[in-house]
Amino acid sequence: MSKSFRLYIAEPLTPKKTLPLTDEQSHYLKNVVKYTPNDKLYCFDNQNGEFLCDVVEQTKKQTLIQVKEQTKPFYACPDIWLLFCPLKKDKTDFVIEKATELGCRTILPVISQYTNCTSIKIERYMAQSIEAAEQCRRTDLPLIEQPQKLTDMLKSWDSSRTLYFMDETLESAPFFDLLQQEKNHKTAILIGPEGGFSEHELTLLRTLPFAKGATLGPRILRAETAVAAALSCWQLIAGDWR
Amino acid sequence: MSKSFRLYIAEPLTPKKTLPLTDEQSHYLKNVVKYTPNDKLYCFDNQNGEFLCDVVEQTKKQTLIQVKEQTKPFYACPDIWLLFCPLKKDKTDFVIEKATELGCRTILPVISQYTNCTSIKIERYMAQSIEAAEQCRRTDLPLIEQPQKLTDMLKSWDSSRTLYFMDETLESAPFFDLLQQEKNHKTAILIGPEGGFSEHELTLLRTLPFAKGATLGPRILRAETAVAAALSCWQLIAGDWR
Repeated sequence: MSKSFRLYIAEPLTPKKTLPLTDEQSHYLKNVVKYTPNDKLYCFDNQNGEFLCDVVEQTKKQTLIQVKEQTKPFYACPDIWLLFCPLKKDKTDFVIEKATELGCRTILPVISQYTNCTSIKIERYMAQSIEAAEQCRRTDLPLIEQPQKLTDMLKSWDSSRTLYFMDETLESAPFFDLLQQEKNHKTAILIGPEGGFSEHELTLLRTLPFAKGATLGPRILRAETAVAAALSCWQLIAGDWR
Repeated sequence: MSKSFRLYIAEPLTPKKTLPLTDEQSHYLKNVVKYTPNDKLYCFDNQNGEFLCDVVEQTKKQTLIQVKEQTKPFYACPDIWLLFCPLKKDKTDFVIEKATELGCRTILPVISQYTNCTSIKIERYMAQSIEAAEQCRRTDLPLIEQPQKLTDMLKSWDSSRTLYFMDETLESAPFFDLLQQEKNHKTAILIGPEGGFSEHELTLLRTLPFAKGATLGPRILRAETAVAAALSCWQLIAGDWR
């Protein structure tokens, strides 16, 4: 039975080009999934789309591939950003993976008052998002920004981008009502940390003209659930699930 | 600082009633969260709502609580069922947790042709769903059914309940379009296993009058992501997030 694999390649792909895989990718193909010439290898480069590739050399030292025909045009995910407060390691992995699968264009780690995660590893986030992009067949990668304090980010916010913050106090409008009115395709979703937003942050968010509080039903969602839920709802109504 | 805790109690709660906690709950209050009389303990029983309770005895042997006033009426989640194919252990835990948070009334493990999980532990699923219900402040618990073969379940299906199956082939309508037309509040969502549905299953599903194929955008979602996404979309438009 032939299998198929997908890899992100960090340089531009064009038909007939020959290029080496990274050591990790070589190891993965050779030892983990045990690639054979019957299998199909699809590669994407985050700019030119997806291409079928041949493995033309596989030695101990390196794997060379040659690019064949294009199999998918480049497609950028909708212009939706996720602002999330880093959580414990496995929950943050989850957030990055789900945000990638759910078609987020940009992921911004933000430090709010009650964020109690001290180690933010952008390299790890990038590796997670590449793996998720390979798996869900994106041809683009989400951009992952350096962490910033939430209040600093709000100060320098481009006010033409709507910022929905998920409000656990149930004092905000249902997300559905806001999405029904949504005409702006530059959007961001902000999910608070496990402890929620501080009073100060909520007061600030409620005065910002570009920020809109939204509720996601009567149950209290964990932060990582709220990420998946809010992105799914946005994609359903305002994104590329229509 | 006072904290608050929430527990599910497997017998009917009425004001003034005194009753013992289970050994696990006693251990949790005493040794894990280190309950003190300053803290608040809320209990729910899956039939009468939520009540504030006092710990009236805490010994090595047992913990007794007394029920005080009602803090929430009983509320049953919308009549949405989740049919899912058991996955690896941690992914199944995730599915149960998210389905509970996202307000699923009934969870039905189904065995499809490509389901390759051999151990289905209903007891474990129930423990997971109780923990999630405590955390997300439900007053009801999802009902977790015994596993059944998918084809058997479809044979005995109550045809007045719409069954949406998430179709990775992209040949089905966007879920949004189907939800817009949704008038039926008896609904179920079916998510296939990692390997997708078999040809035979897809052919069968497409001929059943109560079954409707739905797509969730152009990216291929992992099974557990599709669970969270589909339930969120349903709650947003047809459930209790309005």
